[in-house]
Amino acid sequence: MALYVGYLAALLGTICWIPQAWKAWMTRDTSGLSLPSNLMFLTTVTLWLIYGLMIGDWPLILANICSVTAMLLIVAAKLRFK
Amino acid sequence: MALYVGYLAALLGTICWIPQAWKAWMTRDTSGLSLPSNLMFLTTVTLWLIYGLMIGDWPLILANICSVTAMLLIVAAKLRFK
Repeated sequence: MALYVGYLAALLGTICWIPQAWKAWMTRDTSGLSLPSNLMFLTTVTLWLIYGLMIGDWPLILANICSVTAMLLIVAAKLRFK
Repeated sequence: MALYVGYLAALLGTICWIPQAWKAWMTRDTSGLSLPSNLMFLTTVTLWLIYGLMIGDWPLILANICSVTAMLLIVAAKLRFK
């Protein structure tokens, strides 16, 4: 039972920033986005990706490739359209 | 070595949304925030908190109490000031 909660959290955490990345590039409205928060979270998911690579954990690697991509797009939009 | 990367990721992931919550309430500028993304991430950290409680993992519980609080404040600001 706990495992299903964990899997659902991992799945949601992987896809959740895609709408934010889409919105930022479509509307160019990024003034409300906190650059420190988004940079720190980009660093966070990059570290999780590195950690996944170090311990050879494929679910962690794949989930964080997706998160890093979405967060790179969000930070790029913030820097481009601020 | 991998453990330190994991700890740093966990620490950053715990605190990273505090500046966004602060910014949203101070500026009331939330139009650029994606409600679906922030709701999904609020759900994600809530599920991690439940998962932590289920398996009795204190680092997971404490980290996600902090994240849930920050995300609740961000979603509340988005709903209040949109």
